[in-house]
Amino acid sequence: MGDNLNVSDLKIEDTGTDDTEGDVVDPWNVTSSSNTGVDYDKLIARFGSSKIDDVLLARFEKVTGKPVHHLLRRGIFFSHRDMHSILNLYEAGKPFFLYTGRGPSSSAMHIGHLIPFLFTKWLQDVFDVPLIIQLTDDEKFLWKNLKIDEATKLAYENTKDIIACGFDPSNTFIFSDLELIGQCPAFYRNIVRVQKNVTFNQVKGIFGFGDSDVIGKIAFPAIQAAPSFSSSFPFIFGDKNLPCLIPCAIDQDPYFRMTRDVAPKLGHHKPALLHSSFLPALQGAMTKMSASNDLSAIYLTDTAKQIKNKVNKYAFSGGRDTIEEHRKLGGDCSVDTSYQYLKFFLEDDEKLEQIRKDYSSGALLTGELKKILIDKLSEIVASHQERKSKLTDDDVKQFMKLRPLSFQTK
Amino acid sequence: MGDNLNVSDLKIEDTGTDDTEGDVVDPWNVTSSSNTGVDYDKLIARFGSSKIDDVLLARFEKVTGKPVHHLLRRGIFFSHRDMHSILNLYEAGKPFFLYTGRGPSSSAMHIGHLIPFLFTKWLQDVFDVPLIIQLTDDEKFLWKNLKIDEATKLAYENTKDIIACGFDPSNTFIFSDLELIGQCPAFYRNIVRVQKNVTFNQVKGIFGFGDSDVIGKIAFPAIQAAPSFSSSFPFIFGDKNLPCLIPCAIDQDPYFRMTRDVAPKLGHHKPALLHSSFLPALQGAMTKMSASNDLSAIYLTDTAKQIKNKVNKYAFSGGRDTIEEHRKLGGDCSVDTSYQYLKFFLEDDEKLEQIRKDYSSGALLTGELKKILIDKLSEIVASHQERKSKLTDDDVKQFMKLRPLSFQTK
Repeated sequence: MGDNLNVSDLKIEDTGTDDTEGDVVDPWNVTSSSNTGVDYDKLIARFGSSKIDDVLLARFEKVTGKPVHHLLRRGIFFSHRDMHSILNLYEAGKPFFLYTGRGPSSSAMHIGHLIPFLFTKWLQDVFDVPLIIQLTDDEKFLWKNLKIDEATKLAYENTKDIIACGFDPSNTFIFSDLELIGQCPAFYRNIVRVQKNVTFNQVKGIFGFGDSDVIGKIAFPAIQAAPSFSSSFPFIFGDKNLPCLIPCAIDQDPYFRMTRDVAPKLGHHKPALLHSSFLPALQGAMTKMSASNDLSAIYLTDTAKQIKNKVNKYAFSGGRDTIEEHRKLGGDCSVDTSYQYLKFFLEDDEKLEQIRKDYSSGALLTGELKKILIDKLSEIVASHQERKSKLTDDDVKQFMKLRPLSFQTK
Repeated sequence: MGDNLNVSDLKIEDTGTDDTEGDVVDPWNVTSSSNTGVDYDKLIARFGSSKIDDVLLARFEKVTGKPVHHLLRRGIFFSHRDMHSILNLYEAGKPFFLYTGRGPSSSAMHIGHLIPFLFTKWLQDVFDVPLIIQLTDDEKFLWKNLKIDEATKLAYENTKDIIACGFDPSNTFIFSDLELIGQCPAFYRNIVRVQKNVTFNQVKGIFGFGDSDVIGKIAFPAIQAAPSFSSSFPFIFGDKNLPCLIPCAIDQDPYFRMTRDVAPKLGHHKPALLHSSFLPALQGAMTKMSASNDLSAIYLTDTAKQIKNKVNKYAFSGGRDTIEEHRKLGGDCSVDTSYQYLKFFLEDDEKLEQIRKDYSSGALLTGELKKILIDKLSEIVASHQERKSKLTDDDVKQFMKLRPLSFQTK
């Protein structure tokens, strides 16, 4: 499995910021020196997680009786920890819950931010389980030049975007960590319990923290860890001790390696994980799409015209220099941003395969491929905006209210 | 003044655990290699605080119109930071508040724990100001082998002992930090703000933390700091930004050196301080009285008989080996625990001076001196027990309830 790594084992070999391969992947940086992006197989070996292979996918479909999501099918969610245990639970009719989150870095989320939420929504529908979504206001306060009140406002704005992904308040609780700490003593107690069981040496090894880092950053990983434990939410789970599945981008894994190491010491289950790769920046796979770089990102607030302009102007092309050459030699899908984005957002497998064939053969030109992407993104963003525009402050409050959630207890 | 030291200045010269002089004084250890105890003048130089001198005491009396407390008069509160500024405020009729605290380490507090509270009560009466008392449950959880629930129970027990010192709920708020974090978002926000402005290097320099310390300890000093800021208690102070005076034992000073460095960055006043020396262990001044050492301490729960036995059996004597020798040469008050304790607890200056003369001359024997102490402590402990026995759970709740306090706003 390679899945039972202890934090103490990670100190030397895995720093989370190890860039010996030209790839840097940690919660604050994702860059690659390769134009096809991060080498995810090497990352699996380095992080000690397990590859999502055909055996797991087949079992997923067998146990749930449903076809797997295209993000799983296409290897965009590519790595896991203990997913077989979660399927065992589901098979046995035993409850668990989902936890995912977001650090509200800017008021405008981009289309890359949708990925974990769309996938989580699908997981929730398939498994019929409650979902916890944490917005880490203080992460942004600690790492960015942002006041607490600003971070809290952004969290509120972001909540609307998250809700617009289609979540249901009957089984979804969304919270900002700073708010919940001030409302739910059990949550903060779990934070302190984690902080009692992790040393500076460990966070140094896992996150690359140094002596000149502020103590807020050093203590912060416990805040990412605590929602993995159902006892942090007595108003939802009572005194039940339920296992947790965390769908997230692979750069968040260091938090949960630490959590998995601490969990048994606190009498909790190790959280299971499903890891996604990154939506590349428009300019190509050497960095991930970033909300702090206007030109790299398609925002959920962009107009159809802005989307069209950005894709046409900035989306890195795998096409040839001239039409003649392109017709003759074909384009390179492996580095073409437009094609890569369609892998994330175009659900129809046959259509995607046709595009791949046509672009590789040269039958489809770069401009034509971009047009397909522009149409798809415009449709996604416009319908997101429509759903968001209908959300009221009361809707947001409903999701953020401390309350029980409905969940199966077969 | 030597009073404007920055945290960054403290890194090399002052580690808080510097024992080059044979004295170790930090929030977790107080020991001395000398039988007269810690060299407090050297500590003032090392910590960069100011000595409480006759000029300050005279001004204290002039400004307040009252004789100073015997603990000030006798140099038991011996060091300060910015006390002149507090007297300036009082002279100008401007409000400030008091903050002190306690880490609830065992259910039985000892007579040494009374000192800061008795003195604080006196300060509160003299200045007519509100008082905040923090019980740091999590400190004991993080440093000792104690569960959170146990620490919370101890905090509750300790609160009764504190109230029995004579505090008034109209101007005193007592809280456990873990409880308040779950009730008052403003308090936790100040904790995180402090954590954003202190590096690991700084807490390493001030507290001697190392790489193998858990992140809970590393982050903890911010919890001691936050109550120094009136904005942590909007339910008491509204949006007023009031200065703070902290009476405490000198071993707690490292927390507030750090706080004083951070305060201006957060737009807060630097807290002023009054530092006390330590009540020695029964066995002598090489360690302070400790609740975790049964034989070193007189507990507030002890019976008259237990007090008598402990003092007679363990109180280190400055007397001579034989009565003849003692009558001839006299006893040594500077190392005699009984005499030292009377300096803390016997308010009558003339009586104390007579005891000093008689013991030094040999007129007073060790057994007679011990008898005086036994009577005094029995009286103090018995009346404390009587006051405590009358306290109900409702009384405790009244002090711990989030509410406004009365204070002067001349």
